[in-house]
Amino acid sequence: MNEILPKLPFWSNLSQEEKDLCDVSSVTNRYPAGQFLLGDCGGQQCLGMLHILSGELRAFILSEEGREITLFRLGAGDYCVLSASCILSQIKFETQLSVTKDAEVLVIPSGVYGKLMESNIYVRCFTYELATERFSTVMWVMEQIIFFGFDKRLANFFLAEYHRTGKTEIHMTQEEIAESTNSAREVVARMIHQFASDGLIESRRGVIILKDLTGLQNLT
Amino acid sequence: MNEILPKLPFWSNLSQEEKDLCDVSSVTNRYPAGQFLLGDCGGQQCLGMLHILSGELRAFILSEEGREITLFRLGAGDYCVLSASCILSQIKFETQLSVTKDAEVLVIPSGVYGKLMESNIYVRCFTYELATERFSTVMWVMEQIIFFGFDKRLANFFLAEYHRTGKTEIHMTQEEIAESTNSAREVVARMIHQFASDGLIESRRGVIILKDLTGLQNLT
Repeated sequence: MNEILPKLPFWSNLSQEEKDLCDVSSVTNRYPAGQFLLGDCGGQQCLGMLHILSGELRAFILSEEGREITLFRLGAGDYCVLSASCILSQIKFETQLSVTKDAEVLVIPSGVYGKLMESNIYVRCFTYELATERFSTVMWVMEQIIFFGFDKRLANFFLAEYHRTGKTEIHMTQEEIAESTNSAREVVARMIHQFASDGLIESRRGVIILKDLTGLQNLT
Repeated sequence: MNEILPKLPFWSNLSQEEKDLCDVSSVTNRYPAGQFLLGDCGGQQCLGMLHILSGELRAFILSEEGREITLFRLGAGDYCVLSASCILSQIKFETQLSVTKDAEVLVIPSGVYGKLMESNIYVRCFTYELATERFSTVMWVMEQIIFFGFDKRLANFFLAEYHRTGKTEIHMTQEEIAESTNSAREVVARMIHQFASDGLIESRRGVIILKDLTGLQNLT
């Protein structure tokens, strides 16, 4: 049996029959960075429940005009159920999923996962609980964009510093950046983390290094 | 016993003890239109699980600057668990809740509801399933605002028609409005429904009546 399966949070609540079904149907896939797993960009429409073993995936939404909004990133140990949205009647939006770092992913295919959700309340509960957690994460992203436009504000600030000093290294603490952008330190910290994940900047103790000036410009 | 309780979706899965707990702790409250039930505007911080018996509530988020985004509306028969977010560790954002039409609401207080969620997997599952459904609704609202700015586009279109004809009645079908705004009929239908809920317009067969020109102007 696949040695990962017993680590699934709902494993101990499965019947032997359900465990066997999981075992024969689940697969461990390797995906190279750059591959689209899910959605309009070349991925499948409904992959199943994913358990990321290594690497990194990025979940995003895509507008008709091709604009992307990163919702969250998934790393080793994380689960994803939005990739099984075809069996979740509650989820009517489409999530895109791409590989940002070479990844190894355990996949329980949608058909089988749907059966498990139907027959087992613990699988169902696990699924909706995880979706609820993502809801909260996504709300943070959305509030930032809609209310604060803080991505824009922070990018503007970094570019202004670059033009002022002519240097791509900004020697400021997060506290100082928060003050300068009229924001809170924890908001700055989260956005810096996001910018770094997007390859726009590099963040070290007390210094921000601008890596992608065009990318920053595109945010403003 | 409160005659509404047995209609709760998870009722048949409660133990007698849990049913008794529900019965002694739940209350049916009447709230007048205009009252804030939840959040920064004068409501409580964590009310509990709500079951709307009559009337209408509006769920929204509020920026520090006072900007509101309506997430969804709840009518007779609907449930709300975001109003019990203090006992949902997954939910880290704050929802505001106001009464838009005189309402009668069954409330299971957060403390008791938290106990039920802990002891009963069906209550837990119901809660997260409902939150997942709201997730999907909210994503639609967010996508409209971030990607399409269709609220803005539709408001602009209505105001342009008003300035063109000098009349607050626009005689057009949703199909015709969709064509004029370069959109899809179903998107127009949903946004018209939202504008009407917000009191900005009135919608009748083949005619839109502009009720709040300032409100429409504020959207653009």
